[in-house]
Amino acid sequence: MGNIKLIRGGSVVSSSGCSRADILIRGEKIAALLSPEEELSKKEFEAEEIIDVSGKLIFPGFIDPHTHFDLHVAGTVTIDDFASGTRAAIAGGTTTIIDFGTQYKGETLKEGLDNWKQKAADGVYCDYGIHMSITDWNENVRQECQDMMDEGVPTFKIYMTYDTQVDDKTILEILKRLKEVGGITGCHCENSGLIEALRDEAVRNGDIAKVSSHYKTRPAAAEAEAISRLLRLSQIADAPVIDVHLTNEEGLKEIRAARARGQKVYAETCPQYLLMDDSLYEQEGFEGAKYVIAPPLRTKRDNEVLWKAIADGEIQTVATDHCSFTYEQKRLGEADFRKIPGGMPGVETRGELMYSEGVAKGRIGVEKLCEVLSENPARLYGLYPQKGVIAPGADADIVILDPKAHKTLSIQSQVSNCDYCPFEGREIEGVIEKVFLRGELAAENGRALEKRRGVFLKRGRSTL
Amino acid sequence: MGNIKLIRGGSVVSSSGCSRADILIRGEKIAALLSPEEELSKKEFEAEEIIDVSGKLIFPGFIDPHTHFDLHVAGTVTIDDFASGTRAAIAGGTTTIIDFGTQYKGETLKEGLDNWKQKAADGVYCDYGIHMSITDWNENVRQECQDMMDEGVPTFKIYMTYDTQVDDKTILEILKRLKEVGGITGCHCENSGLIEALRDEAVRNGDIAKVSSHYKTRPAAAEAEAISRLLRLSQIADAPVIDVHLTNEEGLKEIRAARARGQKVYAETCPQYLLMDDSLYEQEGFEGAKYVIAPPLRTKRDNEVLWKAIADGEIQTVATDHCSFTYEQKRLGEADFRKIPGGMPGVETRGELMYSEGVAKGRIGVEKLCEVLSENPARLYGLYPQKGVIAPGADADIVILDPKAHKTLSIQSQVSNCDYCPFEGREIEGVIEKVFLRGELAAENGRALEKRRGVFLKRGRSTL
Amino acid sequence: MGNIKLIRGGSVVSSSGCSRADILIRGEKIAALLSPEEELSKKEFEAEEIIDVSGKLIFPGFIDPHTHFDLHVAGTVTIDDFASGTRAAIAGGTTTIIDFGTQYKGETLKEGLDNWKQKAADGVYCDYGIHMSITDWNENVRQECQDMMDEGVPTFKIYMTYDTQVDDKTILEILKRLKEVGGITGCHCENSGLIEALRDEAVRNGDIAKVSSHYKTRPAAAEAEAISRLLRLSQIADAPVIDVHLTNEEGLKEIRAARARGQKVYAETCPQYLLMDDSLYEQEGFEGAKYVIAPPLRTKRDNEVLWKAIADGEIQTVATDHCSFTYEQKRLGEADFRKIPGGMPGVETRGELMYSEGVAKGRIGVEKLCEVLSENPARLYGLYPQKGVIAPGADADIVILDPKAHKTLSIQSQVSNCDYCPFEGREIEGVIEKVFLRGELAAENGRALEKRRGVFLKRGRSTL
Amino acid sequence: MGNIKLIRGGSVVSSSGCSRADILIRGEKIAALLSPEEELSKKEFEAEEIIDVSGKLIFPGFIDPHTHFDLHVAGTVTIDDFASGTRAAIAGGTTTIIDFGTQYKGETLKEGLDNWKQKAADGVYCDYGIHMSITDWNENVRQECQDMMDEGVPTFKIYMTYDTQVDDKTILEILKRLKEVGGITGCHCENSGLIEALRDEAVRNGDIAKVSSHYKTRPAAAEAEAISRLLRLSQIADAPVIDVHLTNEEGLKEIRAARARGQKVYAETCPQYLLMDDSLYEQEGFEGAKYVIAPPLRTKRDNEVLWKAIADGEIQTVATDHCSFTYEQKRLGEADFRKIPGGMPGVETRGELMYSEGVAKGRIGVEKLCEVLSENPARLYGLYPQKGVIAPGADADIVILDPKAHKTLSIQSQVSNCDYCPFEGREIEGVIEKVFLRGELAAENGRALEKRRGVFLKRGRSTL
Repeated sequence: MGNIKLIRGGSVVSSSGCSRADILIRGEKIAALLSPEEELSKKEFEAEEIIDVSGKLIFPGFIDPHTHFDLHVAGTVTIDDFASGTRAAIAGGTTTIIDFGTQYKGETLKEGLDNWKQKAADGVYCDYGIHMSITDWNENVRQECQDMMDEGVPTFKIYMTYDTQVDDKTILEILKRLKEVGGITGCHCENSGLIEALRDEAVRNGDIAKVSSHYKTRPAAAEAEAISRLLRLSQIADAPVIDVHLTNEEGLKEIRAARARGQKVYAETCPQYLLMDDSLYEQEGFEGAKYVIAPPLRTKRDNEVLWKAIADGEIQTVATDHCSFTYEQKRLGEADFRKIPGGMPGVETRGELMYSEGVAKGRIGVEKLCEVLSENPARLYGLYPQKGVIAPGADADIVILDPKAHKTLSIQSQVSNCDYCPFEGREIEGVIEKVFLRGELAAENGRALEKRRGVFLKRGRSTL
Repeated sequence: MGNIKLIRGGSVVSSSGCSRADILIRGEKIAALLSPEEELSKKEFEAEEIIDVSGKLIFPGFIDPHTHFDLHVAGTVTIDDFASGTRAAIAGGTTTIIDFGTQYKGETLKEGLDNWKQKAADGVYCDYGIHMSITDWNENVRQECQDMMDEGVPTFKIYMTYDTQVDDKTILEILKRLKEVGGITGCHCENSGLIEALRDEAVRNGDIAKVSSHYKTRPAAAEAEAISRLLRLSQIADAPVIDVHLTNEEGLKEIRAARARGQKVYAETCPQYLLMDDSLYEQEGFEGAKYVIAPPLRTKRDNEVLWKAIADGEIQTVATDHCSFTYEQKRLGEADFRKIPGGMPGVETRGELMYSEGVAKGRIGVEKLCEVLSENPARLYGLYPQKGVIAPGADADIVILDPKAHKTLSIQSQVSNCDYCPFEGREIEGVIEKVFLRGELAAENGRALEKRRGVFLKRGRSTL
Repeated sequence: MGNIKLIRGGSVVSSSGCSRADILIRGEKIAALLSPEEELSKKEFEAEEIIDVSGKLIFPGFIDPHTHFDLHVAGTVTIDDFASGTRAAIAGGTTTIIDFGTQYKGETLKEGLDNWKQKAADGVYCDYGIHMSITDWNENVRQECQDMMDEGVPTFKIYMTYDTQVDDKTILEILKRLKEVGGITGCHCENSGLIEALRDEAVRNGDIAKVSSHYKTRPAAAEAEAISRLLRLSQIADAPVIDVHLTNEEGLKEIRAARARGQKVYAETCPQYLLMDDSLYEQEGFEGAKYVIAPPLRTKRDNEVLWKAIADGEIQTVATDHCSFTYEQKRLGEADFRKIPGGMPGVETRGELMYSEGVAKGRIGVEKLCEVLSENPARLYGLYPQKGVIAPGADADIVILDPKAHKTLSIQSQVSNCDYCPFEGREIEGVIEKVFLRGELAAENGRALEKRRGVFLKRGRSTL
Repeated sequence: MGNIKLIRGGSVVSSSGCSRADILIRGEKIAALLSPEEELSKKEFEAEEIIDVSGKLIFPGFIDPHTHFDLHVAGTVTIDDFASGTRAAIAGGTTTIIDFGTQYKGETLKEGLDNWKQKAADGVYCDYGIHMSITDWNENVRQECQDMMDEGVPTFKIYMTYDTQVDDKTILEILKRLKEVGGITGCHCENSGLIEALRDEAVRNGDIAKVSSHYKTRPAAAEAEAISRLLRLSQIADAPVIDVHLTNEEGLKEIRAARARGQKVYAETCPQYLLMDDSLYEQEGFEGAKYVIAPPLRTKRDNEVLWKAIADGEIQTVATDHCSFTYEQKRLGEADFRKIPGGMPGVETRGELMYSEGVAKGRIGVEKLCEVLSENPARLYGLYPQKGVIAPGADADIVILDPKAHKTLSIQSQVSNCDYCPFEGREIEGVIEKVFLRGELAAENGRALEKRRGVFLKRGRSTL
């Protein structure tokens, strides 16, 4: 029958608003939502534990559908593996991550998936799913798409740049095939050739050791181009697509144009694209390397356009693209900006950053926060209503946030293995107090409890 | 302590999806949502009544924020008054209507509001709120805006056509004032002068007795123009606005442009603009008069564009603009199309039409239906979370819909006083079985129970 | 047979480019264009006068289709009448002006036209046409539209603001009627009510004596709104229209949208909207009053957008809206910004400013200059090919410009009666040396010759 | 001193309009334009030949900047070589063609250019220029770009499909390099991978022998995508580009978007995209193969959108993409639609088709025709003012068109070697009577005279 808990006195947040309700948990599931006035009946549940959260906000556990843990890339490996990555996640209110498994050249999807599950074999702190990045398309892989669906992997990724990239012909074939099996495709949109040409030019011009060459050779137009191309391919395929990590207004305009043509397009952005800008690349010395990510940070104007797009429902999810390297690892690219490992930590700070900068500063409402961090990721990635909502029958993944508390982000208190905090010194209003994973307390005050209870999630079709 | 009911076995619909849950009702309120697995605890509630709704969908009571009951206009009065109008509403699953009270020339807002409340004095079948249409703007009315907010009337309407119209200067002043007090403005957007000129021309051309002159003298461009103008005025006022009864793509483009400029714009449409087109005005004889509404029906292409806009979240609410006249009343305009009383019934059929044509035909999901019929109207019009959601603490306004049942719309079974059914003969898939208003059964199988339990709702600020 | 002149050695400019040619003038007309190599034949013409213009550019006389001379407005009268205004015009290379005649309330168009011709009765320095502004629309005026066409007045103007404004119904009727007779309508686009509301507010806020209240109460959105409205009305009328003095990007977007709908829209701008911005209104004291015009100056960004729109062919003509008041006259509004007479001189400096800032600074080519100053005004306003082009048979209206010469704009050398020069101190590259009006030298080195040879031009239909 | 001719009595057309003038020709050049009133002086020229063209229109010789003569492709060679191609051209009023020379893999640009000049070595009927298509980009070719400019080849082409295609990196490098040397790039825009994927699918689906597979596998979106990509690359390069053979509205929208971003984009279309549609591919049997071109014919709506775009100045030039194969040659693809040689004749009929369908049917004015067929090609491709205009000093390339004459297009009277006429049976209003090439009659009544006087034209920089 399971352990019975009652979370009492808080405001339950959903994508439509807030309402006062008490949450009855039985074992791993939410058993009931109760009106606070239901005093009598509540007694009768005989909860073994009553958690008073008066004055606090209660969110469904956050879902981060875009992480890269234990990724071997750029001649090194991310400093966060599945253990440290999910520990950082749960500490920050993220009860589910979905990592990008990769089918490397010559592998089957099955092999790629098995490799990725292996990375989690020693135990993880939050629940996890796996997307499969397809990099080697052939007839066998086409067949395997159905297998992946059956395995609970209904979401895929393609790259339009890097050595993992696939060409336009392949993209169209993948989109058509995934439409058949009911999967959905996310895409890293940047024009590879355009970037290559600019990189060559930067090298010719003697700018090889400048961090700023990074963003100058990956302009917004390179991203907008790739988005436009993806959206024309998906128009032909008559298939929905996800633009992961949208960073700028020009790209957004391409998405608007496709939607006006009648297409289904989902867009994701990340806190770094909302809160930081490309002036960071112009810092003295190698400091800017900490922010070398792809696509790169854009302008302050883009920041504001993206916030507005979230508020207006033009962007559906906010993920992190957590892909962490230490400053030491970043030094691999000290003499050649092209060798700086690209990526930043983020899985730990997303929830509080988005609350503090979004809700507390009045850019979005608390219900929108719930939508982009919990509900939409759950729906888009096939986890709803098991995850993403506080409702009877759902997993009891619960975040308790104190809207009046304050803290300062810092490497001192960071859980991730990374040796710097991109948002070092940023003041936070609204602090996560407790995190429950399937009914059990999993993190408190920014610290994960030492329980590796995370399980692999077989996901279904998108319902967004 | 109130009567206790348990609605068991159904799927509860919200704007994010469906989930299996049982609903415990205590008195007028929802006391709890329970996981179907919570067998034990359910017993303990000792429900006095258990309603089994296995296989059915459970919606929060529908809200129709756009009705005209007991409206004196065009030398006559609508055939539905508050009693018959709300009886038709509740029969069709609508547990709350918001009617447009009017401040006529020379009146105060208070007088207008009192007059409107008086219309409901003999009892109504569902809950109701009142918007105030401002037609006579002056310093006193400016002051009264705050009074209206205090009275629970936070939403207002202005007309850009008819003898109720206000000029651009007044619109800007109203928008600015309502922004100050926290109200929000809906607007009937059609360019009055443009229509007048075309009407004069139609009369000169000898087309005065043709029903088709109605739509030919109210082109889509006349509406798009007024929308554009309203949105420029609201841009200057830096105030949100609601475009009520959007009918066409050109108008939608104007809304998109304003949103891309960063403005907050809400859009409403109605079933008639989704399901009927202007070919109905070209019928033999006077038959087309049944469909004389303003703005008029548009093209089949517009129908599809609007459905798509609902699916994409570009349109927030679907209301009815219920404003019913009998065919006999319509004959007032037999010799002069300008005298045909404009309006149609609709409050009764909206829910089933939208389910049948929207969900059953695959144009939208059940969660989107919940959003546009219940949740968004509740949020936009300041009723959330008392209305618009099935959650502990909310009013127990509940619609039980059988997705497998069928029926045919017909005047034979119509509840409204109107003597024709605009959708006569239309096959419906998905039938409303039961409607609960604040915990009590209020309608069953398309018939309202004879209980006038409806109350006036004091509404708060918009939370959408 | 007339006097014979040969203008030899220059580069003749047209809208498509430049080419070396000699111009043979016989009497008032261009008799021939000759290849410079045609040495032999040239002798045989036995020109009585040979003007050597080696190294100079030869333009068709500039046409200014937007002047207000001798205009009684704002309780005063413009300081330039037809004599001083046309003297300033010819000094600056403008060989034709088209002034806005006004039909005042109660007048017929005929009376308005006669009044305007009377203003020119004492002689003018350049040729002139008259547009008719319609301010009092009725059945008789409707009939008179054809008379105006017959009188050589094929172009009309309507105002959407000021006490000369007409309402939307009237606009539509005028557009439809003018389409019938083959006329074309220009429009001053600003939303009157919007401006009124903002003015009232400025007064309430105590900003009545601030010059800056002028532009703050006439925002770009007020203009864009009116443009949008005009373009919807003309869409319904299926008639072309001219947006006179376009000032900003938002307005341009409305024009683009109408063109994408398939409409015919012409746009005019003026040098002040290309070269000055609203920071001038923020100067200390009353200095900003010199720049009080309507629509007001906009932002630097708008300047650049408009230059680009000229280069791209989105704007067809550059006129001046010359409407001059002395600084003393401007003082009428010292205590109330609403009483500052609106207008600036400009007819004298347009050609050199546009060459210097446009061509010499590389924003546009010399052929584009010819297009917007000469050819397009001639075509749009029914003067082509009599005016607007250097071709056999055309009037010998010729401007000789020395691209290497420099000068400085200043009140010291100003011909207009106005007591200030809006572009005081501006350095000019490219100076007009000589101006010929119908075969005779009419101005030299910025001074008009004392010959009042200008005649009224009966114009035909637009050919643009 | 040269032969002297006088073309008397006609209306000379330019891009700004029509005016009556007589044309004096001395040798190969236009010596003078004379006012028809200049009776006296005309005598003195003592013309040796007077050609009376009263009632006729006089155009500057048409320029076709897009031909493929003697092209080896698809396992065969075009049926028209430089001799027959230019003979067809001159018969149809085209006095200058610019053919696409190709640098094949492994060749230098110089070799490609020499090969192409060799094709014309036996004599041609009209003047010609050569563009160079770059297919093999390397450091040497980069250097050669300047040589090409010096050789009078300032215009280049790149393909985004076919085996001549270059990748995005190369496109950016070419755009940047050509910007440096002052050249300009035209581009065949279709997404190669997208087409390949659709072709594979068509083959899998058993549609290999259907002509209709041609257009179904080259959808408008494939073209729009490539246009968008090209325009993003040129945005980065800050370089102008030419979209050759634009066929559809979606592509036009991409061009509009780039122009709104401030980019310089030129667009060309062809008569086939204005006058024929994709229903031709759905004919019985193999008949549709005659119309197999790339991009393919589009919809009737696209036809009308393109006409409107010409009228509005959104499209700058109308060329032919003449690339002729006999029906017998087309049969190479009878069993496999991918092997149908792609191309149609057109160089001969462009002028009359555009006059008849454009001017005579009221879609465009005669001045617009002059602009898109003569003046703009001359300006864009560096031939102005030697070509493209009737002015003193220009080459005496002259087309005499009788606007009242009629004829029927037919293979019977066709000059091209092709064995079918794509516009067979089309009625023509407005017939070309005489064509002069550099002062000498070169064609009459649709027949070329047997004089191969055409010369290679060294061209300069674009002036459009």
